[in-house]
Amino acid sequence: MSQEELKKRRRDDYKFHLEYQTRWSDNDMYSHLNNSIYYFLYDSIINTYLVNRCKLNPQTSGQIGLIAYSASLYFSSVSFPTTVDLALRVNKLGTTSVTYEVGMFAQGDEEVKAVGTLVHVFVDRQRGGGSAKAPSMDHDIRRGLEELLVVNGMPDKPKL
Amino acid sequence: MSQEELKKRRRDDYKFHLEYQTRWSDNDMYSHLNNSIYYFLYDSIINTYLVNRCKLNPQTSGQIGLIAYSASLYFSSVSFPTTVDLALRVNKLGTTSVTYEVGMFAQGDEEVKAVGTLVHVFVDRQRGGGSAKAPSMDHDIRRGLEELLVVNGMPDKPKL
Amino acid sequence: MSQEELKKRRRDDYKFHLEYQTRWSDNDMYSHLNNSIYYFLYDSIINTYLVNRCKLNPQTSGQIGLIAYSASLYFSSVSFPTTVDLALRVNKLGTTSVTYEVGMFAQGDEEVKAVGTLVHVFVDRQRGGGSAKAPSMDHDIRRGLEELLVVNGMPDKPKL
Amino acid sequence: MSQEELKKRRRDDYKFHLEYQTRWSDNDMYSHLNNSIYYFLYDSIINTYLVNRCKLNPQTSGQIGLIAYSASLYFSSVSFPTTVDLALRVNKLGTTSVTYEVGMFAQGDEEVKAVGTLVHVFVDRQRGGGSAKAPSMDHDIRRGLEELLVVNGMPDKPKL
Repeated sequence: MSQEELKKRRRDDYKFHLEYQTRWSDNDMYSHLNNSIYYFLYDSIINTYLVNRCKLNPQTSGQIGLIAYSASLYFSSVSFPTTVDLALRVNKLGTTSVTYEVGMFAQGDEEVKAVGTLVHVFVDRQRGGGSAKAPSMDHDIRRGLEELLVVNGMPDKPKL
Repeated sequence: MSQEELKKRRRDDYKFHLEYQTRWSDNDMYSHLNNSIYYFLYDSIINTYLVNRCKLNPQTSGQIGLIAYSASLYFSSVSFPTTVDLALRVNKLGTTSVTYEVGMFAQGDEEVKAVGTLVHVFVDRQRGGGSAKAPSMDHDIRRGLEELLVVNGMPDKPKL
Repeated sequence: MSQEELKKRRRDDYKFHLEYQTRWSDNDMYSHLNNSIYYFLYDSIINTYLVNRCKLNPQTSGQIGLIAYSASLYFSSVSFPTTVDLALRVNKLGTTSVTYEVGMFAQGDEEVKAVGTLVHVFVDRQRGGGSAKAPSMDHDIRRGLEELLVVNGMPDKPKL
Repeated sequence: MSQEELKKRRRDDYKFHLEYQTRWSDNDMYSHLNNSIYYFLYDSIINTYLVNRCKLNPQTSGQIGLIAYSASLYFSSVSFPTTVDLALRVNKLGTTSVTYEVGMFAQGDEEVKAVGTLVHVFVDRQRGGGSAKAPSMDHDIRRGLEELLVVNGMPDKPKL
């Protein structure tokens, strides 16, 4: 998916939505949300979905998702105290991993501010980031993620 | 540059080095550095270099760098209270933008833990993230960044 | 104000309210909001009020508020993805400084989770944290803060 | 302990020292370390000591420390990319709780920038923030903390 196509994303290109208040400390010295803060927000909508819709319990579930890759394109800036709308879809669902896309919008503005791509690999909690073969994704997680899957519009294999 | 090649990065593939103590709150519920924290560290080595070696003054310089793109591959995890070594190089230096690569290592370990790619576009402070044509990079910044440039090993054009 | 009295705070002891989504990374290794995160939230309700109700412009206002003292009592824990309700009052309004109290509640729960106390000293932006005599608070800021003032229930002079 | 006395703290008033690089995002819109960031650093020196000197394992130890109270006085500001020196002492050591004091210094500067006070209550991991009677502190933790205890100079009982 090219940068030009992603820049045209609108709220209804996504399937799960969550509103977030920005925080004073999100703004950096240049008075805009720091680029790293976006990843906190991407992480938050993904894990909110996993906890509330896919029965993930971060403290007890046998399987947890580790981020293997993340990326973001920044189209224009946002500043505290703006409220932002996060929007989530799944672009690719494999046996052990999932590729999420998150759009970030500012309230009252149709244009997308930033688009993130993140890859979760599901692993046994005990195994951690080790090298053993990853197991198949838990049934509840797969079922929940399938509901976010957008079949067309799969991006190219993530590259750095 | 493929994921396999980046995974082989060693400290001496980079030209500027900075040690960082991790913080208690860097670890998330899974007891490893949260994936977003890496970007705070990538940002920090880049801006330390710009301030200390390229005369950037974040409060007064006429020109500032805004992140247009960032990405990270995570090869294995790190946890507080480990001390990490950050390492910086420039893979591409354009008229108005620069592509950085940051390697993250844990002290006492030769293998790279994660590799980040970030693109700074230099803009007039007043213009912010607007749409006017970006100016050429300031002389001191260009000169400083040239010292980090690694000519071979340019990665593909960043994609999401 | 004793710890026992503060523990009895309810939402209607406060005059300005703001809802906040917690973030994945707010939880630390012990799976609760890290104690430092509370201060990000205290800061955020205070500055939201100053920006939206007192005409503070953090980038251009001649006068800015610097924190001289902060403290928090933690009564019970909160975890992502809970939504929290922040609540603000002013306990003391001086010529150049203000003492805020912030209550933090979890949605659906009447008991206060934590209570913070913060002191802002208003200074000329240029002066920064210097030693010149602080000016009187700007008219718009004073007027806004007066609306949050709770006359009885002033706590003792903050001590460390 | 009065504010005037704490302002006179020097590095050798403390018993354990740790250097920290500041991060780009630590600075807020006013170009100084945000007041909340200090708590992340206070937390970090405390937990580094507990892990490295008191055998605390945050993932497996039966007993963990929860913050019941924290406070900070800010005397003058610090900005990225300054390196800061953190310094730790124990002012009070009870059966189940400990009162830490942390001083924060900037490299090359003798004056203390900020002083924090934090109270850890040690609880059984399973019990969390519940109401059962707290157990006595683990032997290794008590022994480690005793080494930081400064007998004179106990502050007043913490108040908000």
